[in-house]
Amino acid sequence: MGGPANIIITAGGTSEPIDNVRVITNLGTGRLGSLIADRFAEEENVGKIFYVCSANSRKPDSDRVSVISIGSTHDLKKKLEELFRDNTIDAVIHSMAVSDYTVSSVTTAGELVGYLEKNSGRDLSEALVIRGISSTDVRGEAGKISSKLKSPIILLSPTPKIIGMLRGLAPEAVIVGFKLLDHVTSEELVETARGLMEKNDCDMVLANDSAKIRGDKHTGYLIDRGGSITTFDTKQKIAEGITKAVMRKVEKKWEKTS
Amino acid sequence: MGGPANIIITAGGTSEPIDNVRVITNLGTGRLGSLIADRFAEEENVGKIFYVCSANSRKPDSDRVSVISIGSTHDLKKKLEELFRDNTIDAVIHSMAVSDYTVSSVTTAGELVGYLEKNSGRDLSEALVIRGISSTDVRGEAGKISSKLKSPIILLSPTPKIIGMLRGLAPEAVIVGFKLLDHVTSEELVETARGLMEKNDCDMVLANDSAKIRGDKHTGYLIDRGGSITTFDTKQKIAEGITKAVMRKVEKKWEKTS
Repeated sequence: MGGPANIIITAGGTSEPIDNVRVITNLGTGRLGSLIADRFAEEENVGKIFYVCSANSRKPDSDRVSVISIGSTHDLKKKLEELFRDNTIDAVIHSMAVSDYTVSSVTTAGELVGYLEKNSGRDLSEALVIRGISSTDVRGEAGKISSKLKSPIILLSPTPKIIGMLRGLAPEAVIVGFKLLDHVTSEELVETARGLMEKNDCDMVLANDSAKIRGDKHTGYLIDRGGSITTFDTKQKIAEGITKAVMRKVEKKWEKTS
Repeated sequence: MGGPANIIITAGGTSEPIDNVRVITNLGTGRLGSLIADRFAEEENVGKIFYVCSANSRKPDSDRVSVISIGSTHDLKKKLEELFRDNTIDAVIHSMAVSDYTVSSVTTAGELVGYLEKNSGRDLSEALVIRGISSTDVRGEAGKISSKLKSPIILLSPTPKIIGMLRGLAPEAVIVGFKLLDHVTSEELVETARGLMEKNDCDMVLANDSAKIRGDKHTGYLIDRGGSITTFDTKQKIAEGITKAVMRKVEKKWEKTS
């Protein structure tokens, strides 16, 4: 057994639709992911590179990379399942900022109060979670929430945890998770990232703190399952470090099974 | 009195923050606005061109254009007030997709039900609108909503209507509004756009329908206060048509006051 290795890189952020024109999204730009994809494209022993990203995410420069645009977390899940079904994937670098929540419905204060009053005595918070509130009066014409409401309310529900399904989809792949926190100590960051790695059976996690990201200056700790931590200080070096570490692990797996 | 004319173009879409990493935004890309800015930059009788846009919006190519990034509708309002205070503005082309709503607070079904039960007998929907619900338990560490909630709820409130404040800020400027609808007849589109023009005292409105936008193919109706309608079929032609119509009106105003 041997190469070339097929790689999936996720990048940017998901967009959860509120209506036909509005979305809930996050501040993931895809810049780091695009650099990682371009760096993998320089490797000889790499075959297909799938770059799964949001529509407005940064795209890699290399034309060796297949760019696949997705919108919501649900789209991302479906697309990954397809990619794993149709290809043997050797590594997944999951840098995309995936929304924890999606929109289950949109309502108004008035509608919500009416619903809650009619249903008093039941476990209302439970009912709210399970049923959502219908929003037929809320939606204006053409699938866009009316702009005349005094107090629209968006009810959210959890999305599937993408990082948690990767190992099931690809038992043999090298999986790299990402953990982004904001203004924490490096000890706390590393500890949280280790928790993510254990819980989701990742091979590595790139831990970073938005307080230490300024353009291409970007402090990143690449934490290995074996215990080692490598520190990088730019996006380019992170891309280089991840590519090398992943290729080493992929090649080691090939040696074992040959 | 005469030139050169100072121009403001707004483009892209606003982003209303939910927490430190999540936003509510819309699908405005800024592509049409960037073409309009570049087209104005080719005009001889034009001075300053301010391009007010979202961080991830398309930017004009011309280095004659000053790019100003804003986030929320509140930021947009502040920035426009500054620009009008510090400059004599001759025309505003307001193509930005401005959010109708901003986030007033984030809560959970449980918190909301508890609040409503404690306050029964009052006009709860009114209370909800005015007070919002505190969300101290909802926010996790570092200003990011906890990812472990079963059913977060986002309460929205209306944003200031930017299009409605332009005439007050710039009594003498040529103001071009934009109206985007989805899958309506051209009659309905034009009628709605005329309503927007009257209500906000615009000189012109560009009316368009997202069903008739596909890349640079873009059907746009430029409706004039005088009653004329000019139809365009690409983004480039819309940019050309708006620039010429605006410059004609600006020069006519100069003649009157000279």
